[in-house]
Amino acid sequence: MILTGQEIRRHQGKSIVIDPFDESQLNPNSVNLRLHDELLVYEELVLDMRKSSRVRRIAIPSDGLVLATNQLYLGRTVERTETHDFVPMVQGRSSIARLGIFVNATAGFGDVGFAGFWTLQIYAVQSVRIYPGVPICQIFYHTVTGEITEYANGKYQGNRDIQPSLLFKELSPQYDPQLPLPFGQERSR
Amino acid sequence: MILTGQEIRRHQGKSIVIDPFDESQLNPNSVNLRLHDELLVYEELVLDMRKSSRVRRIAIPSDGLVLATNQLYLGRTVERTETHDFVPMVQGRSSIARLGIFVNATAGFGDVGFAGFWTLQIYAVQSVRIYPGVPICQIFYHTVTGEITEYANGKYQGNRDIQPSLLFKELSPQYDPQLPLPFGQERSR
Amino acid sequence: MILTGQEIRRHQGKSIVIDPFDESQLNPNSVNLRLHDELLVYEELVLDMRKSSRVRRIAIPSDGLVLATNQLYLGRTVERTETHDFVPMVQGRSSIARLGIFVNATAGFGDVGFAGFWTLQIYAVQSVRIYPGVPICQIFYHTVTGEITEYANGKYQGNRDIQPSLLFKELSPQYDPQLPLPFGQERSR
Repeated sequence: MILTGQEIRRHQGKSIVIDPFDESQLNPNSVNLRLHDELLVYEELVLDMRKSSRVRRIAIPSDGLVLATNQLYLGRTVERTETHDFVPMVQGRSSIARLGIFVNATAGFGDVGFAGFWTLQIYAVQSVRIYPGVPICQIFYHTVTGEITEYANGKYQGNRDIQPSLLFKELSPQYDPQLPLPFGQERSR
Repeated sequence: MILTGQEIRRHQGKSIVIDPFDESQLNPNSVNLRLHDELLVYEELVLDMRKSSRVRRIAIPSDGLVLATNQLYLGRTVERTETHDFVPMVQGRSSIARLGIFVNATAGFGDVGFAGFWTLQIYAVQSVRIYPGVPICQIFYHTVTGEITEYANGKYQGNRDIQPSLLFKELSPQYDPQLPLPFGQERSR
Repeated sequence: MILTGQEIRRHQGKSIVIDPFDESQLNPNSVNLRLHDELLVYEELVLDMRKSSRVRRIAIPSDGLVLATNQLYLGRTVERTETHDFVPMVQGRSSIARLGIFVNATAGFGDVGFAGFWTLQIYAVQSVRIYPGVPICQIFYHTVTGEITEYANGKYQGNRDIQPSLLFKELSPQYDPQLPLPFGQERSR
C-alpha cells in the first residue's frame, strides 16, 4: 500500500520526516523534493568499482548550468528525510524526464530507517539548462509487512553531503585511504 | 499491495479504465500498453527548464522508424487510462529494455485520479527499429492507505496528445506564451 | 506492502526461493543479487524489434572488464529466483548507480510465478571497470491482492542463460528461425 498525500502529512514529524517540509510540494501520493545547488562529477577517465574516485564539485548558479551529455552528475536533495515504519522511494518527476533528464535516486534504496539527504544520479540525453531549487524528484512511501530491522549502520546513513559511490569499501575491505589530494580536489571516502 | 491481473479486470470499467482494453494484453499483475504512431522531438540545441521548447512531430510508418542514439523521443500510449482509488504505475517491458530501449513513463507520476494518455520518454542505447502499436510498457496498480485527494488540476490532466515538459510554467508562472510558430512547427504550451 | 528483510527470510525456501541464498546479502527490505561472469552484446549495427539478433558472449575476467559507453550489455544474476504469492521486483543498487551504471532488471517484469535468472540490461554513462560476482541489484517483494494467475508459459520462464529480447516472436508469430550461425556466433531464439 502506498500512502496518500494526506497520510504522508499525518505522519510528518513522526514516522516520516521531510525537512524542510513545504505544504505546496504535496501531491496526491507523494511529495516533491528539490535539487540542491551543488553537483559532483568524477575526474577519472575510467571509473573502477574497486577504487575510490576523485571528484570535482560544481556549483549550479542561480542563472543555471547546462548539463552535458554522456556525463554523470551526482546531486542531492535540499531536503533531509528520515523514515521509520515505511519504505521510502524516490523517482524523477515527469516534467524532468520529459526534458530528457533522468534521475535515479536510490540512495540507501529506500531502506526503512534511512536518514539523510538523497544522492541523485543525474544524466541528460540532450543538453539542458538546469537551476538550483527545482523540484526534481518525488518521494513516496510503501507500507511494510514483517518484523523491521532498520537501516542503521549503512555506508550512506546520516550523510551530510552528496555521496559518491562507496562500493570500493565493500569490495576491498582492506582499502587504505590515500592522503588528501592537492588542488582542492576531493576523493570519495 | 499490487493488484493481480484478475483484480485489474474486475475493476476495469469502474475504478480502473483502460481504453481500449484488450484481454490479450493482461499479464499476471499488469496490462501491456501499446505505442501510438507518433513521436515528438525537441528542436532546441540546448533545452532549458525555464523555457518552452519547439517540438517536431514524427510519424512512425508501418514499416518502422529507426531510433537514433543520444536523442530523446516523446511518445504516448494508444490507450487512455483513468484510475481512481489506486496508484497506477507504468514501466517499460522487459522485451523492450533488452533491445536497449528505455521507457520512462511517469506522466502524472501515477497519481490517484490521473486521466489521460501516458507520455513516454524514450531513448535508445543503440540504434533500433521500432513499430507503431508495439506493446511497449506495462501498467500496474498499487492499493493506497489514507484519505484520497485526487490529481485533478495538474498540468497533464486530461491530455489528448503527447505532452512535452510543462515545467517552465511552474518555474516561470508569469510566462507569456509566444505567437504560433510558422512552418508547421509547434511549441509546448 | 513490501516485505521486510525478516519476512523475506521467513518465506525463503517456500513462497520465495533465492538460490543460492546468502544471509549476508539481506537488507532491511530487500536482498542483494550478484552479477554473473558473462555478458551478451548484440552484433547488429541496427537492432530491429521484429527480427532476431546475433549476439556475442563476453566473459568478465576476475580482474575486471571496462564497460564502454553507448553500448548495451545483457547480463544475468548469479542467483536463480522463484516467487509465488508475491510480486518480485529488481532494481540496481545505489552504489552501482552512483558510478553511472544503470541496471534495468525487468525480466518477466516481476510476475507472480516467475522462475529463472534475472536478465539485466546494463549500460554505463561513463567508462567503468566492473567485476564478476559484484552485488549489482536488489530484489524486493510486494504483497498482492486478488486472485492469482501465475506467469507460467512466458517467453522468459525457466530460463537458464542470459536472455536477449524475444519480442520478435511476439511480433512475428510466423517467424522461421534460421540455421545456426557459423563462427561460434549465436542468435536469439
